[in-house]
Amino acid sequence: MTTTPPPSLPSDLDGFERSAATSLDPATYRYLANGSGANVTRDANRRAWDQWTLRPHVLRDVSHISTATTVLGAAVELPVLIAPTAMQRMAWIDGELAMARASAAAGTVLVTSMAASYSVEDVAAAAPGGTRWAQMYLLRDAGRTRALAERARDAGYAAIVLTVDGAAVPYGRRRLADGLELAQPFSFPNMLLPGEPLDTPLTELVNDFDPATTAADIERLASWSGLPVVVKGVLRGDDAARAVDHGAAGIVVSNHGGRTHDGCAATAIVLPEVVDAVAGRAEVYVDGGIRAGIDVARALALGARAVLIGRPTLWGLAVDGTPGVVAVLAALSEELVRVMAFCGAPGLDSLTRDLVDPNGAVHHHA
Amino acid sequence: MTTTPPPSLPSDLDGFERSAATSLDPATYRYLANGSGANVTRDANRRAWDQWTLRPHVLRDVSHISTATTVLGAAVELPVLIAPTAMQRMAWIDGELAMARASAAAGTVLVTSMAASYSVEDVAAAAPGGTRWAQMYLLRDAGRTRALAERARDAGYAAIVLTVDGAAVPYGRRRLADGLELAQPFSFPNMLLPGEPLDTPLTELVNDFDPATTAADIERLASWSGLPVVVKGVLRGDDAARAVDHGAAGIVVSNHGGRTHDGCAATAIVLPEVVDAVAGRAEVYVDGGIRAGIDVARALALGARAVLIGRPTLWGLAVDGTPGVVAVLAALSEELVRVMAFCGAPGLDSLTRDLVDPNGAVHHHA
Amino acid sequence: MTTTPPPSLPSDLDGFERSAATSLDPATYRYLANGSGANVTRDANRRAWDQWTLRPHVLRDVSHISTATTVLGAAVELPVLIAPTAMQRMAWIDGELAMARASAAAGTVLVTSMAASYSVEDVAAAAPGGTRWAQMYLLRDAGRTRALAERARDAGYAAIVLTVDGAAVPYGRRRLADGLELAQPFSFPNMLLPGEPLDTPLTELVNDFDPATTAADIERLASWSGLPVVVKGVLRGDDAARAVDHGAAGIVVSNHGGRTHDGCAATAIVLPEVVDAVAGRAEVYVDGGIRAGIDVARALALGARAVLIGRPTLWGLAVDGTPGVVAVLAALSEELVRVMAFCGAPGLDSLTRDLVDPNGAVHHHA
Amino acid sequence: MTTTPPPSLPSDLDGFERSAATSLDPATYRYLANGSGANVTRDANRRAWDQWTLRPHVLRDVSHISTATTVLGAAVELPVLIAPTAMQRMAWIDGELAMARASAAAGTVLVTSMAASYSVEDVAAAAPGGTRWAQMYLLRDAGRTRALAERARDAGYAAIVLTVDGAAVPYGRRRLADGLELAQPFSFPNMLLPGEPLDTPLTELVNDFDPATTAADIERLASWSGLPVVVKGVLRGDDAARAVDHGAAGIVVSNHGGRTHDGCAATAIVLPEVVDAVAGRAEVYVDGGIRAGIDVARALALGARAVLIGRPTLWGLAVDGTPGVVAVLAALSEELVRVMAFCGAPGLDSLTRDLVDPNGAVHHHA
Repeated sequence: MTTTPPPSLPSDLDGFERSAATSLDPATYRYLANGSGANVTRDANRRAWDQWTLRPHVLRDVSHISTATTVLGAAVELPVLIAPTAMQRMAWIDGELAMARASAAAGTVLVTSMAASYSVEDVAAAAPGGTRWAQMYLLRDAGRTRALAERARDAGYAAIVLTVDGAAVPYGRRRLADGLELAQPFSFPNMLLPGEPLDTPLTELVNDFDPATTAADIERLASWSGLPVVVKGVLRGDDAARAVDHGAAGIVVSNHGGRTHDGCAATAIVLPEVVDAVAGRAEVYVDGGIRAGIDVARALALGARAVLIGRPTLWGLAVDGTPGVVAVLAALSEELVRVMAFCGAPGLDSLTRDLVDPNGAVHHHA
Repeated sequence: MTTTPPPSLPSDLDGFERSAATSLDPATYRYLANGSGANVTRDANRRAWDQWTLRPHVLRDVSHISTATTVLGAAVELPVLIAPTAMQRMAWIDGELAMARASAAAGTVLVTSMAASYSVEDVAAAAPGGTRWAQMYLLRDAGRTRALAERARDAGYAAIVLTVDGAAVPYGRRRLADGLELAQPFSFPNMLLPGEPLDTPLTELVNDFDPATTAADIERLASWSGLPVVVKGVLRGDDAARAVDHGAAGIVVSNHGGRTHDGCAATAIVLPEVVDAVAGRAEVYVDGGIRAGIDVARALALGARAVLIGRPTLWGLAVDGTPGVVAVLAALSEELVRVMAFCGAPGLDSLTRDLVDPNGAVHHHA
Repeated sequence: MTTTPPPSLPSDLDGFERSAATSLDPATYRYLANGSGANVTRDANRRAWDQWTLRPHVLRDVSHISTATTVLGAAVELPVLIAPTAMQRMAWIDGELAMARASAAAGTVLVTSMAASYSVEDVAAAAPGGTRWAQMYLLRDAGRTRALAERARDAGYAAIVLTVDGAAVPYGRRRLADGLELAQPFSFPNMLLPGEPLDTPLTELVNDFDPATTAADIERLASWSGLPVVVKGVLRGDDAARAVDHGAAGIVVSNHGGRTHDGCAATAIVLPEVVDAVAGRAEVYVDGGIRAGIDVARALALGARAVLIGRPTLWGLAVDGTPGVVAVLAALSEELVRVMAFCGAPGLDSLTRDLVDPNGAVHHHA
Repeated sequence: MTTTPPPSLPSDLDGFERSAATSLDPATYRYLANGSGANVTRDANRRAWDQWTLRPHVLRDVSHISTATTVLGAAVELPVLIAPTAMQRMAWIDGELAMARASAAAGTVLVTSMAASYSVEDVAAAAPGGTRWAQMYLLRDAGRTRALAERARDAGYAAIVLTVDGAAVPYGRRRLADGLELAQPFSFPNMLLPGEPLDTPLTELVNDFDPATTAADIERLASWSGLPVVVKGVLRGDDAARAVDHGAAGIVVSNHGGRTHDGCAATAIVLPEVVDAVAGRAEVYVDGGIRAGIDVARALALGARAVLIGRPTLWGLAVDGTPGVVAVLAALSEELVRVMAFCGAPGLDSLTRDLVDPNGAVHHHA
C-alpha cells in the first residue's frame, strides 16, 4: 500500500474521529461512538492494547518491509479488514458502496453487514474486484439467514461471518430505541425474504435473532453456503475451540466494540488465550479499540492473523467517503510499517509474542 | 417476573438513587447513603464487582431464561432478596408495610429489620402471601431477642437472620448521633419486651447489643425459634465455616454496606473464599454495592445463592412506595435476564465461576 | 484510658491537623508537615496502611476490651507511644514539658528528642510518674552522645532510642536551612557538653552526626547507659536482625515520616519483613502515617508491639497544649477499641496477621 | 566533584527544565522536550524509576563517599555521562563546544552526536583533556559512517557509540518535519563526505539511515575505528547478549527518550533483564527519565555501570552554557552523594540490587 492521504485529511485515526464528530449530526455520532452501559468495555478495549508495551528487536535487517498476508487464502495488502457495521448510509450518502470501493482500493477484505442499507449484490457490484465476506446472524426464521447465505455465495462472497454475541438482543427493549429512530429512513435488503417490502423495520428483524443458536449452526451455515464460516464474538478459549470443532474456519475475538453488553473482558486481554486454544486449527482475528498501527502490531504479535476495524472506517466514510476510508487504512498501514521497522520485523510473521509485554510489570531478576 | 416499570420511574438503580436524593430531605438521604468513616468500604464494594469482568459463553441455547431459584427451600422469582434496613418510615409513610407488599409482588424474600418502625406482625399482615425472614441482633438482655424470635416464628417468618457485625456498636458514641436524631419520631416495636412503651429510644436498645455474642448463640436462636438461622456479616471463610458448624443454614457475606466500620474488605473480594469454605453445607448470600443485573450475575457466578439489596430498595420506596420497589426489582430482573442471555446461561445454575475474571489481569501464554 | 476529648477539640487526628494548620504560623506548619523532596514517601506512608484492608472476625466475645500492653517491660495503657520530635516549643510555649504531662496522663511512653528545646532533666521533672525514653544520634564527637546517655539514665529514662537514618544529614546543605531559621530562638540543651553555651546553633551540632555509625555503636550506647537500646530508622529485615545481633532491644520501623530522604519504602510495606526477621528476639515498633485507630490495629496485626506517632502529637500540642495531646491519644484509643471490637479482638494479642489483607488483591479459588 | 551551583541557577533538574522552557523559544523547547506520539514512553520512563522504591541500609560507615568509577577503563568523577543530542546550537550559541567544556570540567564523558552542529575535531579541540565518545548511525552510504569513525579515532575519541534504534526513521515522513524546520540554519559536519557542502540538509542524511544494519555491523565499526563499540538503543536481554557476542563493549539501555517510537517499554523496567543477559561481559548503561540523584542510584543498584542524561544537559546549556551544564551535573552529584549516604553506600559498588524494590508490592509473610 503506497497511497498517501491528501493533505486535507486527518493523519491518524483519532483525527478522523474528531473530524467525523463535527461532520455527523450529534445523535448519529453518539449512536456510532457509544458502546453499551457506561462504556466500560468500549474504553477498556483501547486501554488494553496499551497494556502491551513493545519490547522491540534491534539489529535486524528491515530494509524491505511487507504488510501483505492472506486471510482464508485470499491475499490482502495489510492485515486490517473492514468490520461489519450496520446502516452505513448513516455516515455517507451511498454508505456500503463507498466502503466497498475503499476496501478494494486498499487491497483488503470487506465484511458486509446483514443490516447493511444496500444488498450484498449491490455491494459486490460496486467493487467487483474486491474480496468480500458476508456477516449475518441466525434469525429465528432461519430461512432468512439461509437465503442471505446463498445470495452471498452467488454474489461471490468468500466467507460467511456468523456473529454469535447477540443472544441478549431479543431480551432487550429500551436501549435499542435510540438506534432505531436513526434507522427509520433505511431499508435492510439483506434481512428480507423474497417479496417482503424493503421498508420492513429493523426492530422486527433484530428481535428475531435466534437465541437458540448453538455451535451446530456453524455447520448449517457452511452446508447452506458452501463457504468457510468465521465465528465473530468469541471471548474465551474454550468457546473458540468448540467453534472450530464444529467447522469454524476463523474466529473473531470481539465484544462488538463494547456495544452488546457492558462489563465484559477487553479483547486484547483474552486474545492470547483464544490463540492458544485454537492452536492453529483456524485463523484468529480480533477487533475492538484498534486505533493505530502499533495496535495492529500488538494484535499480530499476540497471534492474530489480522484485525478488523469498525468505527474508524465509519469516521473515514463520514469525512470523505471512499477516499476517507482509504486514508484511514493508509494511515494504519504507514504506522504499521514504521512499527515493524522499529521492532526489526520485515514481515508480519516476525511479529512474535516476545515483542509485547504487559506494561505494568516490573521484571525481577533478584 | 414480567412487571415492567411505568414510564415515569427511573430505569436503573442509579436513576432511582438520583431521584430519591431529590425527594428525601438532605439529612435523611445522607444518613441512608453514607457508610462509616470516609466511605472507603462503601465505595470499594461497588468497585469490587466491576473488578470481575465477564467472560461470556456464546453458542448456547438461551431461548428460555429463568431467574427462579429457591432460598432455604422457598421459591423466589429472582435471586435478589430485600436486605433488612432500619426505620423504613424515613423513606415512605408506611415504610415496612409498603416494602412488604413490594416484596410479595415481586416474588422474593423480605428481611424485616429488628429496628423496623412496624412490628413483625404488622409487616406479616401487610402481605400475607410473601416469604419473610426476621433480622435481629442478640441484645445484652437476651430475652428481648428471644421474644422477637418467637414472635417472628408465630407470625410465619421462615428464618431468623442474625446480624453479627455489630460488636463495635456498644463502643461507639459520636457517629450514632446523626441517625438517632432522625430516628426520634419512630418507635421500635420489635426490640421491646411486653409492656415497654413504644417510644423507648433506639439509643438504649442499640447500645444494648451483646458484644459477647459467639457462634454458640446461633444454636440458641435456632432452639428458641425452631427456624433456620442465617448469619449476616461474615467476611472470612473460617468464620463462615465455624458458623455452619454451629448450625447456620445460611451465611450473608456482608460488611453492612460499609456502615459498621470503614476499611474492611469489599464483599465481592471475599465471597469466593467464603463459598469455598462453606463448601455447600449452607447457602451463601452476599450484599454490598450490588446495583445492576450484571452484579447479581457476578455474585452468583462466584457461588452466591442469591444477593440482598438494601439502599436501592429504600430509593425505590422513597420514589414511589410499593411500585417504586417493584420497579427497582423489575429493573434488576430485566438486566439479569439480559446478562444471562449474553453469557449463554438459561438458568442461574449456569452462572459458573469461569464466567468472571478479575479485570486487571493480563493473561500470559508465553 | 477513659479520658474523653472536651467538646471543643477535634474528634479525630485529621481534624487536629486542620486545626493546627490554622493556629500555627504558616512557615512552622509547613516545616512540621512536610517531608523531604516531593513528599512521595510521606504520602506513601499513609496510603500504605490503607492497602491493608481488614478481614474482621465475628462471633467472638468482646464484652471486655483492653488496649493495655507493655513495651520493654513497662506497662502502657495503649500501644501508641509519642515519637521524638525536635524543638516542640515551635508548637507550644513550654513544648516538651506539656508533651511530657500529656504522655504521663495518657499512660504511655514519651520519647524525648536529642533536639528538644528542654533538657532531659526538665522533661523528667515535668511529669515524674511517666515512662520516658531518650532519643539520640551518635554525634561525631561521641562524648556528647555519651554525656546525654548518662544524663538520661540518671534522670530515670527507661531506654535509649538510637536514630540511625540520619547518615545523609552531614552531606546536606540546602534543605536544612528552612528549619534552621525557625530554630533560631531555641536552644538545644541535650546536645551540649558541660560548659557550652545554650545558644550554640543547631547547624553545627546536626552537621556533626557521625556518618561512621555502625551496629557496634548499639553496644556502645548500651554500655554507656546501662539501658536497653531501641534502634529507630530501619526499613529492612536484614538490618533489623543485625541490630538485634548487636544488642538492640527494640526496632522502630521508620523512614522518619518521610523527612530524611524521599523515595524510600513506606513503613507499612516493610513492617512484616522486619517482624519476621526479628523473629521475637526484640520488640518491633513502627511509625509513619498512622492517623487512626484502624492504623494502630493494622500495625499490631502485622506484628508491631506498638506504634509511635509524631506529627499528630505536635498538632495536639499546637491546638491545646497538654489537653490537646491527651485528646489526640484519647481519639486513637477510642477508635482502637472500636476496631478491636469490630475485629473480635478483646486484647492486643488477638490482633493477628490474618486480620489484614492487601486490599487490591482478588482472591482466586478457581 | 565539589563544584556547587552559583546561587542564581536552579538547584535541581526540574528547575533547570522550567528555566530553559522560558529561555528557549517555544518551538525549540517543544521539539527538545517532546517524545513521539502521545509521549507515553517519555513519561513512562520517569515514572518507572519511581517504581523502584529504596530499601536503604543503615548502620554502615559512610564517613567517606565517592562517586568515582570508570567507564570502558576511563576514570569519571561521577557515573553520569552526557548523552548524544543533535544540533546543540539550538540551545546555546556555541552548542557542542560549550557542552564539551562542561563535560571536561565535571570529569565525565561526552558523547558527541553524529548530528552535532560542530565537527568531532572542533569538539575535541574545545576541551582537549576530556573523555569523548562519538555517536553515529550506520548510514546507507556506509562510507560516511566509516569516515566519521576514522575521524573520531584520529581526534582522540575513546569509543564509538552505535545507535541502533533508528530503523523506523527511513520509513517516516511527517513527524520529522517539525525538527527539520528548526534545523534549517545548522550544518552537520559529521555526516558529510569530504568535499560535500556544509549546508547539505539533514533530511537526506537522516533518511539515509541504513535499515539493513545488523549485529555484524558492530564488528565493522570496531574494525574501521579500532575503538570499542557501545551499542545504544537496546530494550531486551537477548538483543544485548547478541550485540555482545558481536563485540559490543557496552550496551546503552535506551528508548531514545521516547523519541523514536511511542509505546515501548520504559528503560527502568527492562534494565535488570539486560544486565542479567549481559552477565558482566560488557558494561551496561541506561538513559531515559533520569532526573535526580536517586534515579542514578536506582540505575546503578539495578546493575548499570553509569547513566546518560540528554535533555537535562540541554536545559543546562540553554540556561547558562557551560556553567549551566556543570551545575546540572553538580546537582546530580550532590543528590547522589546524599542518597548513597542514606543507603549506607560509601562507593558505587555498594549500590546493590537489594536496595531497590518495586514500590507497589506488598510483602506477604503469612
